[in-house]
Amino acid sequence: MQDRTDTAGPGPDPQPADRLRAARAATAAAGLDALLISPGADLRYLTGYDALPLERLTCLVLPVEGDPFLLVPALEKPAAQASPAGGLGIEITGWDETDDPYALVAARLPAGTARVGVDNHMWAEKTIAFRDALPGARQELAGGVLNELRMRKTPQEAAALREAGAAIDRVHARMGEWLRAGRTEREVGRDIADAIVVEGHVRVDFVIVGSGPNSASPHHELSDRVIRPGDPVVVDIGGTTRQGYCSDSTRVYVVGEPPEEFRRLYEVLLRAQRAQTDAVRPGITAEQLDAVGRDIIADAGYGAYFVHRTGHGIGVESHEEPYIVSGSRRPLEPGMAFSIEPGIYLPDRYGARIEDIVLCTEDGGERLNRTDRDLLVLP
Amino acid sequence: MQDRTDTAGPGPDPQPADRLRAARAATAAAGLDALLISPGADLRYLTGYDALPLERLTCLVLPVEGDPFLLVPALEKPAAQASPAGGLGIEITGWDETDDPYALVAARLPAGTARVGVDNHMWAEKTIAFRDALPGARQELAGGVLNELRMRKTPQEAAALREAGAAIDRVHARMGEWLRAGRTEREVGRDIADAIVVEGHVRVDFVIVGSGPNSASPHHELSDRVIRPGDPVVVDIGGTTRQGYCSDSTRVYVVGEPPEEFRRLYEVLLRAQRAQTDAVRPGITAEQLDAVGRDIIADAGYGAYFVHRTGHGIGVESHEEPYIVSGSRRPLEPGMAFSIEPGIYLPDRYGARIEDIVLCTEDGGERLNRTDRDLLVLP
Repeated sequence: MQDRTDTAGPGPDPQPADRLRAARAATAAAGLDALLISPGADLRYLTGYDALPLERLTCLVLPVEGDPFLLVPALEKPAAQASPAGGLGIEITGWDETDDPYALVAARLPAGTARVGVDNHMWAEKTIAFRDALPGARQELAGGVLNELRMRKTPQEAAALREAGAAIDRVHARMGEWLRAGRTEREVGRDIADAIVVEGHVRVDFVIVGSGPNSASPHHELSDRVIRPGDPVVVDIGGTTRQGYCSDSTRVYVVGEPPEEFRRLYEVLLRAQRAQTDAVRPGITAEQLDAVGRDIIADAGYGAYFVHRTGHGIGVESHEEPYIVSGSRRPLEPGMAFSIEPGIYLPDRYGARIEDIVLCTEDGGERLNRTDRDLLVLP
Repeated sequence: MQDRTDTAGPGPDPQPADRLRAARAATAAAGLDALLISPGADLRYLTGYDALPLERLTCLVLPVEGDPFLLVPALEKPAAQASPAGGLGIEITGWDETDDPYALVAARLPAGTARVGVDNHMWAEKTIAFRDALPGARQELAGGVLNELRMRKTPQEAAALREAGAAIDRVHARMGEWLRAGRTEREVGRDIADAIVVEGHVRVDFVIVGSGPNSASPHHELSDRVIRPGDPVVVDIGGTTRQGYCSDSTRVYVVGEPPEEFRRLYEVLLRAQRAQTDAVRPGITAEQLDAVGRDIIADAGYGAYFVHRTGHGIGVESHEEPYIVSGSRRPLEPGMAFSIEPGIYLPDRYGARIEDIVLCTEDGGERLNRTDRDLLVLP
């Protein structure tokens, strides 16, 4: 394999040029002199360029003073130009094998550069190379600037998330084609992965099929366990669409008749998830929203079995701000999109989780996943 | 989706406890006080734990003085213990949502800790959090220590790479089942990806199917182009086996009769690749090995069209040291494993690349890929 870009990756995002302007303004407001953005979600968000992470440096340099530019290995320049970044009107510069790309960046930043924001996911080998190439600049995290922008979705981004939600809903709606007793979780998972692509994603991000006792582990992904009659099966799946936005939805299926207590547990969980979704509105804090579900589950006696936070933001990444978690006093705002996914897990027995992506709107919350939330009994 | 570990990921590696000892000795020899290793190839290499990269800190702390320990989010502790890391006899500590994991690490390192080696792929948000938690410690790269260990394969690792090579060879041997005129690259690519898993990998790392003019781009991955009669098709594929080792092999297929000049180009390339493979022996430098193929291709008039290095090391990652590249005076040693993959690309027309993994042995080189290297004509 030679280094390459993924031409099948997510395509143009709604308004990258506006984002570059907004990011520069926010960078200046944060007192930073420049952002240094490496391949990943931030680079996709700002330029639409879905560069693979390589040992060679690819970096968007966004200074407060002067023009932004994208530095890429010379071999990658055609791919960068062919990506949406090529239509942004910013300079794309290729560096040769004999160049020191970190020195090239340092030479182009203003002499007084004192604080730079590095991509939160930049690899240490690049972070430290920039530290050494810019000895006068204190490194901070670009996320302090970019997460604030990314968590507030524009109407175009909300539409892209709505499409992603509909795409993963189409996969859940077809679950009866694949999920049945006698098949392994892994076999079912492969069919689901194929369907995630067929139904409107360019990338499968995760496929969790937790059957029987595996449903009791929020960590579980896929195994060779054969699904048996009466098993609860937690199916938590997501992908990335061509527009570059992520989907994520969990439903619980039962193959045949489940244990009676499981039905009781599921009714509690469904009530909690519905109450949390109904409680979404501007001004409620993340921890208040978390408590809405946690209280219902605790009142029913299952408090010790809801072992994770309620949810996470979603956008160009599956997990991003805002996190719906105890301790977060962040008030929700219109345009924020996040999962509501309470779960109850009885160790070694069974568990359940119900998950929808919800968009906070001016007057409440809009569910972006719409398939049936009742316990789904398959033959 | 909740945070989770990939239970389908690569399994135990040959001798992790020995590796921890060797890494500690090398860390001391490099004058570092500790290594801080985050999820990824280094963590898998040292502990066998295939942790997913999460926003919450997972970190192997390997001090020169004192015992190593693995710090993981409390929710991940069962998964970490169930992984091969659980059998290493090292402490596995879970941190709670209200803990500051960076402060926990700092508190346990000796007071005089002055130089720490951070994982080359550690995210900046974690690197910078460690910088702030350990203000007296200069950060360097753990790769300076670990790459030297990782690039010299033990006999067990060589055996694991041999198995990986045989697994990807079985996929190439079946190419006639999927590759034919009238199908798109993406359709063929999906079948290949399924076969990569069926034939002995737990993870598909990449699938490149470059047909017709797409074969002329070393960057190409997959597209919706329909394969036509007479097309050369470059197929470059690889995955990770259950033991955690990577495969990577490229073959060139033609569907029907290719252009006459393509046959000439291919003969030159085949000659170059064979000469390079035959030249592998202890003591030859990476740049000398690169030149063996580059000279043959240049003498035939295609010098300007071999636009990338000859190859890259391979092991628990697809790309690692040693790189077989002009400018590298590193002498090859027994136990090093790397790709030999010269290519010739005539822009907008067609191109070819032939790739085998080769293991340097005491008296030469052992090819780990053995499928036919001739131009493979499919009906």
